[in-house]
Amino acid sequence: MTTQTLEQRLRAVEDKLAIYQLIASHPPAADTGTDSYYRDAFTSDGTVDLGGGKAANGNEAIASVVKTEAHQAAIAGGLCHFTGLPRVTINGDTATATSYLQVITPNRDAPAVDIPGHGTTGGFRIHRLGANRWELVRTPDGWKVTRRTLRQLDGSPEARDLLKQAF
Amino acid sequence: MTTQTLEQRLRAVEDKLAIYQLIASHPPAADTGTDSYYRDAFTSDGTVDLGGGKAANGNEAIASVVKTEAHQAAIAGGLCHFTGLPRVTINGDTATATSYLQVITPNRDAPAVDIPGHGTTGGFRIHRLGANRWELVRTPDGWKVTRRTLRQLDGSPEARDLLKQAF
Amino acid sequence: MTTQTLEQRLRAVEDKLAIYQLIASHPPAADTGTDSYYRDAFTSDGTVDLGGGKAANGNEAIASVVKTEAHQAAIAGGLCHFTGLPRVTINGDTATATSYLQVITPNRDAPAVDIPGHGTTGGFRIHRLGANRWELVRTPDGWKVTRRTLRQLDGSPEARDLLKQAF
Repeated sequence: MTTQTLEQRLRAVEDKLAIYQLIASHPPAADTGTDSYYRDAFTSDGTVDLGGGKAANGNEAIASVVKTEAHQAAIAGGLCHFTGLPRVTINGDTATATSYLQVITPNRDAPAVDIPGHGTTGGFRIHRLGANRWELVRTPDGWKVTRRTLRQLDGSPEARDLLKQAF
Repeated sequence: MTTQTLEQRLRAVEDKLAIYQLIASHPPAADTGTDSYYRDAFTSDGTVDLGGGKAANGNEAIASVVKTEAHQAAIAGGLCHFTGLPRVTINGDTATATSYLQVITPNRDAPAVDIPGHGTTGGFRIHRLGANRWELVRTPDGWKVTRRTLRQLDGSPEARDLLKQAF
Repeated sequence: MTTQTLEQRLRAVEDKLAIYQLIASHPPAADTGTDSYYRDAFTSDGTVDLGGGKAANGNEAIASVVKTEAHQAAIAGGLCHFTGLPRVTINGDTATATSYLQVITPNRDAPAVDIPGHGTTGGFRIHRLGANRWELVRTPDGWKVTRRTLRQLDGSPEARDLLKQAF
């Protein structure tokens, strides 16, 4: 640290915030079907690996997922991607990030509950809960994702193996 | 980027972190009824638009909401505002931020579940789930909110329209 | 602010991001039983106070918790710590942070729900929901936690008292 110039230190900070921004932009893109986000955020040979053999290769293929009839139907029903604070590690011109992601939907079958001043609702349910590992690269157009791997936190070892890579 | 001075780049970073701090301070303020947070965080003509015609105009009116009997009753019953990582865009002396917000309450009717080492609870339920758009302005006293718009992510188009503005 | 050098301002930014990283690293460590995280993140006389008289004193004791049979059983069943955006206040060589934490587990008794393009699951439940207060100190080896206090947001006054300290 002590041998770094101010510019190098500042760049490390900017890098981290740029990667935060990439990860923070994913939920609004997913929940609105904004394919341009995926096209810009992933490299042309980037990969999304959702587990169970479900994957998309290349930023165009990744972007097209949110335009499918199934994804649009999920959006119409009420779809929320909710992400927390990620752990981000920069290593020169590459970086990795570990984040958690909830996929939340309206709980249509739950009895309505009234909370004073906060309305009466049936509430929402966490439909999916995943651990994400993002692999990123610095490009002339900013940081881009080369690989996003998602595993469900359902007790299976795959999610734990993914999270362990953070350390 | 290349034509910016170190000071300008540093200021952009400080701006982003200051806005993170404003957004991160909202849940503790809401959950404790700390009206001074709202008085300081919003401009005197700031607005909170919660949808469905529910709105408060001016930082004093906004601050007074958490002192109402209804809000105090919600706090006494167990109230949690939970926010994730926001997307923040600075544009000179104004900024916008997009964030997600869960309002969570104890699940008083659910059967108790035991998780080893983590106690036996009936758990908690997500009562409300919203998309937030924050509009901010730089002032001599730091960044302040001119408008916060919240829409429920229940499948209605309003939340999607709000989220789309992020892009 | 105006009297601070660029180096001082940059250091304040780096401090905040270092504390974000400490807090963001907690969930992956808890959910994988990575005891080295706790050993490194806490001072040798650091304390974790979970409320109800449940506490661990010293980084070694704190680290050993995730190696207990109970914690390992919870991990095997599917365990997720989910944290949002923290509020962080630096004060020279000490700092405090306020964060929220969900402990989420698979909802084994819930009926399966299908969301188009997002699979069929019984979903997940929020088992615990806590307010955290982190007290930190700058050391030659980076920021370390001297005390983490957690209180459940179940309507009892302890969590509110903890959150109020943020202001």
